Amino acid sequence: MPRVLVLHGPNLNLLGQREPEIYGDVSLEKINQSLQALAADAELEIEILQSNYEGVLIEAIHQAPGRVDFILINPGALSHYSYALRDALKAVNLPAIEIHLSNIYAREEFRQYSVIAPVVRGQISGLGAESYFLGLEAARRWLQKAQ
Amino acid sequence: MPRVLVLHGPNLNLLGQREPEIYGDVSLEKINQSLQALAADAELEIEILQSNYEGVLIEAIHQAPGRVDFILINPGALSHYSYALRDALKAVNLPAIEIHLSNIYAREEFRQYSVIAPVVRGQISGLGAESYFLGLEAARRWLQKAQ
Amino acid sequence: MPRVLVLHGPNLNLLGQREPEIYGDVSLEKINQSLQALAADAELEIEILQSNYEGVLIEAIHQAPGRVDFILINPGALSHYSYALRDALKAVNLPAIEIHLSNIYAREEFRQYSVIAPVVRGQISGLGAESYFLGLEAARRWLQKAQ
Amino acid sequence: MPRVLVLHGPNLNLLGQREPEIYGDVSLEKINQSLQALAADAELEIEILQSNYEGVLIEAIHQAPGRVDFILINPGALSHYSYALRDALKAVNLPAIEIHLSNIYAREEFRQYSVIAPVVRGQISGLGAESYFLGLEAARRWLQKAQ
Amino acid sequence: MPRVLVLHGPNLNLLGQREPEIYGDVSLEKINQSLQALAADAELEIEILQSNYEGVLIEAIHQAPGRVDFILINPGALSHYSYALRDALKAVNLPAIEIHLSNIYAREEFRQYSVIAPVVRGQISGLGAESYFLGLEAARRWLQKAQ
Amino acid sequence: MPRVLVLHGPNLNLLGQREPEIYGDVSLEKINQSLQALAADAELEIEILQSNYEGVLIEAIHQAPGRVDFILINPGALSHYSYALRDALKAVNLPAIEIHLSNIYAREEFRQYSVIAPVVRGQISGLGAESYFLGLEAARRWLQKAQ
Amino acid sequence: MPRVLVLHGPNLNLLGQREPEIYGDVSLEKINQSLQALAADAELEIEILQSNYEGVLIEAIHQAPGRVDFILINPGALSHYSYALRDALKAVNLPAIEIHLSNIYAREEFRQYSVIAPVVRGQISGLGAESYFLGLEAARRWLQKAQ
Amino acid sequence: MPRVLVLHGPNLNLLGQREPEIYGDVSLEKINQSLQALAADAELEIEILQSNYEGVLIEAIHQAPGRVDFILINPGALSHYSYALRDALKAVNLPAIEIHLSNIYAREEFRQYSVIAPVVRGQISGLGAESYFLGLEAARRWLQKAQ
Amino acid sequence: MPRVLVLHGPNLNLLGQREPEIYGDVSLEKINQSLQALAADAELEIEILQSNYEGVLIEAIHQAPGRVDFILINPGALSHYSYALRDALKAVNLPAIEIHLSNIYAREEFRQYSVIAPVVRGQISGLGAESYFLGLEAARRWLQKAQ
Amino acid sequence: MPRVLVLHGPNLNLLGQREPEIYGDVSLEKINQSLQALAADAELEIEILQSNYEGVLIEAIHQAPGRVDFILINPGALSHYSYALRDALKAVNLPAIEIHLSNIYAREEFRQYSVIAPVVRGQISGLGAESYFLGLEAARRWLQKAQ
Amino acid sequence: MPRVLVLHGPNLNLLGQREPEIYGDVSLEKINQSLQALAADAELEIEILQSNYEGVLIEAIHQAPGRVDFILINPGALSHYSYALRDALKAVNLPAIEIHLSNIYAREEFRQYSVIAPVVRGQISGLGAESYFLGLEAARRWLQKAQ
Amino acid sequence: MPRVLVLHGPNLNLLGQREPEIYGDVSLEKINQSLQALAADAELEIEILQSNYEGVLIEAIHQAPGRVDFILINPGALSHYSYALRDALKAVNLPAIEIHLSNIYAREEFRQYSVIAPVVRGQISGLGAESYFLGLEAARRWLQKAQ
Repeated sequence: MPRVLVLHGPNLNLLGQREPEIYGDVSLEKINQSLQALAADAELEIEILQSNYEGVLIEAIHQAPGRVDFILINPGALSHYSYALRDALKAVNLPAIEIHLSNIYAREEFRQYSVIAPVVRGQISGLGAESYFLGLEAARRWLQKAQ
Repeated sequence: MPRVLVLHGPNLNLLGQREPEIYGDVSLEKINQSLQALAADAELEIEILQSNYEGVLIEAIHQAPGRVDFILINPGALSHYSYALRDALKAVNLPAIEIHLSNIYAREEFRQYSVIAPVVRGQISGLGAESYFLGLEAARRWLQKAQ
Repeated sequence: MPRVLVLHGPNLNLLGQREPEIYGDVSLEKINQSLQALAADAELEIEILQSNYEGVLIEAIHQAPGRVDFILINPGALSHYSYALRDALKAVNLPAIEIHLSNIYAREEFRQYSVIAPVVRGQISGLGAESYFLGLEAARRWLQKAQ
Repeated sequence: MPRVLVLHGPNLNLLGQREPEIYGDVSLEKINQSLQALAADAELEIEILQSNYEGVLIEAIHQAPGRVDFILINPGALSHYSYALRDALKAVNLPAIEIHLSNIYAREEFRQYSVIAPVVRGQISGLGAESYFLGLEAARRWLQKAQ
Repeated sequence: MPRVLVLHGPNLNLLGQREPEIYGDVSLEKINQSLQALAADAELEIEILQSNYEGVLIEAIHQAPGRVDFILINPGALSHYSYALRDALKAVNLPAIEIHLSNIYAREEFRQYSVIAPVVRGQISGLGAESYFLGLEAARRWLQKAQ
Repeated sequence: MPRVLVLHGPNLNLLGQREPEIYGDVSLEKINQSLQALAADAELEIEILQSNYEGVLIEAIHQAPGRVDFILINPGALSHYSYALRDALKAVNLPAIEIHLSNIYAREEFRQYSVIAPVVRGQISGLGAESYFLGLEAARRWLQKAQ
Repeated sequence: MPRVLVLHGPNLNLLGQREPEIYGDVSLEKINQSLQALAADAELEIEILQSNYEGVLIEAIHQAPGRVDFILINPGALSHYSYALRDALKAVNLPAIEIHLSNIYAREEFRQYSVIAPVVRGQISGLGAESYFLGLEAARRWLQKAQ
Repeated sequence: MPRVLVLHGPNLNLLGQREPEIYGDVSLEKINQSLQALAADAELEIEILQSNYEGVLIEAIHQAPGRVDFILINPGALSHYSYALRDALKAVNLPAIEIHLSNIYAREEFRQYSVIAPVVRGQISGLGAESYFLGLEAARRWLQKAQ
Repeated sequence: MPRVLVLHGPNLNLLGQREPEIYGDVSLEKINQSLQALAADAELEIEILQSNYEGVLIEAIHQAPGRVDFILINPGALSHYSYALRDALKAVNLPAIEIHLSNIYAREEFRQYSVIAPVVRGQISGLGAESYFLGLEAARRWLQKAQ
Repeated sequence: MPRVLVLHGPNLNLLGQREPEIYGDVSLEKINQSLQALAADAELEIEILQSNYEGVLIEAIHQAPGRVDFILINPGALSHYSYALRDALKAVNLPAIEIHLSNIYAREEFRQYSVIAPVVRGQISGLGAESYFLGLEAARRWLQKAQ
Repeated sequence: MPRVLVLHGPNLNLLGQREPEIYGDVSLEKINQSLQALAADAELEIEILQSNYEGVLIEAIHQAPGRVDFILINPGALSHYSYALRDALKAVNLPAIEIHLSNIYAREEFRQYSVIAPVVRGQISGLGAESYFLGLEAARRWLQKAQ
Repeated sequence: MPRVLVLHGPNLNLLGQREPEIYGDVSLEKINQSLQALAADAELEIEILQSNYEGVLIEAIHQAPGRVDFILINPGALSHYSYALRDALKAVNLPAIEIHLSNIYAREEFRQYSVIAPVVRGQISGLGAESYFLGLEAARRWLQKAQ
């Protein structure tokens, strides 16, 4: 069964409480449960990690090759400056999609440039929790084709 | 039955022939057929328009309110300068998603900024024809919730 | 009787419905009727055209010399990128005034620079429908002096 | 009878002598007389002040609320750097229009950005002395509606 | 007999009348007649189109492959912002040369960058009508070698 | 008894009336009374000056050495362009603190750079009237140590 | 008794040894002792944390709501790039003040912009260890008013 | 006898005391005495004014035509932002030379651009008090030739 | 018989060996021979100089007036910074055309701006050795007309 | 025996597998073994640490003074944004050299600026594993001279 | 007798013929004769060199120490890019003044920044040949004082 | 025996005298002697050239292929603008290393970008004369491997 790694970056553990007018009122736990359910339906194994540490995320990516087949990553604010995270994704060379809950292009200027985007396959942004669910769907289709 | 308008901007009529290493080798006709099939499954009506004229796209958007419930738009190169297209989308105030076949963030600098992105709900980019299919899926979910 | 050409650019056909907190709730038709009435009082002939096509506006300007004596133009969002429209106005060399309903200098950064402004005589902005009416008044005074 | 305050910024006392190919050959006194006459016709009281001191202009604006109902201001070169003048206009919150004799958008780059423009209702520029007269007309119409 | 497509962009229909100190006093018709004559001498078929519509130019390029062997294009002011025109030229992948009557590098800053230039073979600018004639000569030599 | 000079720049005389959602609803007079009271408690003499004239503020600073021992200055909008005020502070070389009522770093872009900041000892901003009171407290502690 | 959280960012553990001409010769331990003493006088509970890890600081902020009532934070060099730290402060929405020992506006260009400043209430900078003490005083006054 | 107007801008009254390592230790009074003596030798009348007010300097320039034949101006820090002072010099159109004591091109970045320089005949900078004396010498030679 | 000066800048002596995928595999000697032959056909005298010294090129230009009637110059990398070469061309005021073998607009960013272009009549770029031959043809036509 | 600390930043643990066309195919372990051998020959003690955590690297630097005499650091992608790492190196004030395997000046724009470079003694880049070995040689020579 | 070295950069040999509306109609020979005469009067020895080669100017500066006491240099267009010339002047550390015939601040943007200015004592610009004569006078005074 | 070419750019002949606090007090002759000695030890032939002429350096590079196997180049200030030197190095395509005595990243902004760096294999900077010696060592190792 193909495996998908879902990475949530800094501050995403506060989802639901944090600026709900921007990020929605669904908690990260809820999103993770939905992802688990969707993965089960799609015959995918799923592994989920949230961390507020750049280093933890980098090492999770390092350990991915051989263990997982696809990465969904919402790098949170690290999207805008963590070249180390970018290099990790580039180094392992697994198919990956960048996820954003909010429409980062309709917010502060610094949020409108992701240093991660140039090294992933694609990006889904602005659709709230659906951004994750569509990302999982995209992973499923990619893995299906890749078989 | 809810209706979705799919707009393809300039040069997308050449899909399949045009720089296939970037845009893939599937023709627009094929993508449209798949969208029609997916829409039928999803109990959505779908209307599709490709134009190389900014003005035609603007007027299709003007005529949307009352006739359609959701817009999927791949503005092609107009993404990068057509403030008139942006104003049209802002004016009609329908839920919309911006679609890109290629990962615009991994290409020439001018392609990395979309003037359309700040006025739509979200953006799906880099996933080839799947960008459209996921966009339609996102529309379906939104319309389901909105009922 | 001197003739004035009034050109309305993209999306102005939606006036009244479109973002009324910015553009006001008067429809374009109403503004056009007022312009007709004011022109009649001022013993001016007036010709009015709205288009969402850059090309249509350019050709209306090309056909102006010999037929009209003054141009009032609200280029809408084309103000911010249409160097072709600018060149058309420069080429025909008729007296012209740029009109904006909203105060473009109090809005998004891209709206704060008009590529049209350097080639017209002057600009009236931010006064809602009055921007047009004062523009017509300015045309009347200019034409009176020019006789 | 409603009152309008007309403020002329630095160097405008030299009008008529100063670079007449840009600013015209009408003196400030002449413009002021015309404004007085137009105001009388329009049943407006008018108060006119020219100063080469930023501080004098700021204090004239401070004293405006309660005494005048509308401000016409040609800030001269202060347009391009006097954030203090801008703050004064913002603070008193009276309806105001910015006036320029010349088309500032067709001149040196520094003249193409007004720090005042974002805090007034609108701007009339490039029409020579008519810029003032149309500004007074705009004030009259606004005050009429506001009654 | 090899075929060359000559495309003239917006406002070029006004040649001869429009700012003759910059663009010369030869009309477009005259240039086209000279091109026809030169083409006949050079045993080339030639097809000429002027349009003020970006969309018309894009579609003329789309229809070129299979029908013509070389494109000469003077994009007029579209040179400076029409990424859609650029994408059309890139998509059809025919040999093309960009033509400018005036020396765009000695004019306003915005004219000094062509978004078209990176996707054509070369550029001939500043030589008035001769820019076109040399462009045709270049096409002739290329087509001769390519045979 | 050590003396502190408090300088209030342009528009601060309107405190309490002026944009109270940004600057608070306490009048300058009230702030000055509190400063007087705090100074008395702290065994400091205090001298307070508000001016809308850059020149008046510059000369007050020139006259400071020998008469006062510390400067608290809220330069208002002059913060963002008055290099002359900066040079005055640099020239007299007294310990000084820059005060801002509002958080200038959370407002318009032009307010986020103070030309004054590089020549003072420190800056206290965003704490409303407390910015002044803490500034006086800082002056007291500095003067105490300096004795 | 209200609680204040004091956060010291990277490298602040070296205070006293590190570039004393810029940061002073008082050790962090000394500053912490003084803060403890001042807090006791002011009837505040105080919690102090220094970390060289962005992630540790973010999680300390996450755990603050419900446990502390005010945050004093000297983000050290993280001030200039840690959008993740900024988002943490924005997310918990507690009153906070940014502290800097040195006058960051009189140093290298990169130090003159704090990405943290726009999301805190205010900033106290340049006053050495006094920046902290005044920050605590500000917290005390705010908490007093808030009761 | 020809007359020269010498204008000293803000803070120049502090010469000798103010940052002597940059501006030298000669007082303004001393420089003025030397200028008077040199003028007497050169059979020039000389008028000297120092002001910390932009407005005073502007009005001194306004009153110059007819009364003086040449202007030497050290605008101090106003060099870097006072477009109003620039406009005054442009308006009166007298021959003028800009004087700087220090080498403004070897100091802070903001000092390296003078908004005044483009409207005067020339500039003498970096030579301490000699900058003024050479400026007077330049004025003498110009006036001699002009007779 | 009219004379044309052909100037080749730095590194052009390596043509044929140097990066042939960019500059082609024809040697400079070959190009010069072709130019000589074409000149003979066109009844033009031709003088050719290659130098790796900016100073040699400048002096060749200085000696041109009176000796030659037209200049073809490929400044090589000097195009991008040699304002001294630009000034030489401006000073002698002979008709000149700038030649580039490669399409400089499709290469590194620094190659996309030529400091020479604003002072020549026109530019021919991207057509390999043909750029020179068409340049000579353009010179011939110009000299023919000028007679 | 003098001691050298070698620090490897994020992602360098993947050397050999990660983008070998850029970083080479030698593993970090291999490089470390070579460094150990070279150090032994050079009579240096060597301590090596790789971390994907900015905080770990900062603290290793904090603990260096007194324990080691020289630092070789390859900060990986942290080179381009970690002002905290820079401050750590500045704070401990040990001689240090920055190492890069690849030529960072021939890669993406963001890699061409190192925030670390201004605070170290020098930089060796682009020579693959040799960059480290030469760095160790440089350390040896420095330590020899310093004795 | 003290010696002054006068260096004229590229294209200055054309003075009198070259763009006389900018540079005047006096030849370099004439200026040199006047400088010789003035030097004789001032009891200075003078050495004059014009070169179109950066290398020649650099070496003339290298040979100056010990042979001459002061440098007057008009670097021509090298002012705007020759960091090598700048380094030469910095290296020999002789008093030097930069001379410009034209007002470089009133011309093209590239002429408004001199890379030489930060390393000389001062600059005299815009006064035509007088710029040199005043420069010599300044040298005389400096040398007098230095004795 | 493999040959190494060492090129020293402008002003390096002054080493030892020139700003010794930046460049050290060792003369170029001394460095060259050390390089000769090290080369002899390493069984390398070495050729050394210093020039203040860009053209001489370019031609030395042109003549290198076939005669030398490796280039060490310290381009001095030419590093920052000589695209012609860069093109010469690119053209001959020999392995090369860029050498800098000082840490160019800790100096003036213009020195922080080398136009040469992107076309060489690597760069060694900031280590004084050791930069050269390590460069030679790197050449030796490269040549050894290449055999």
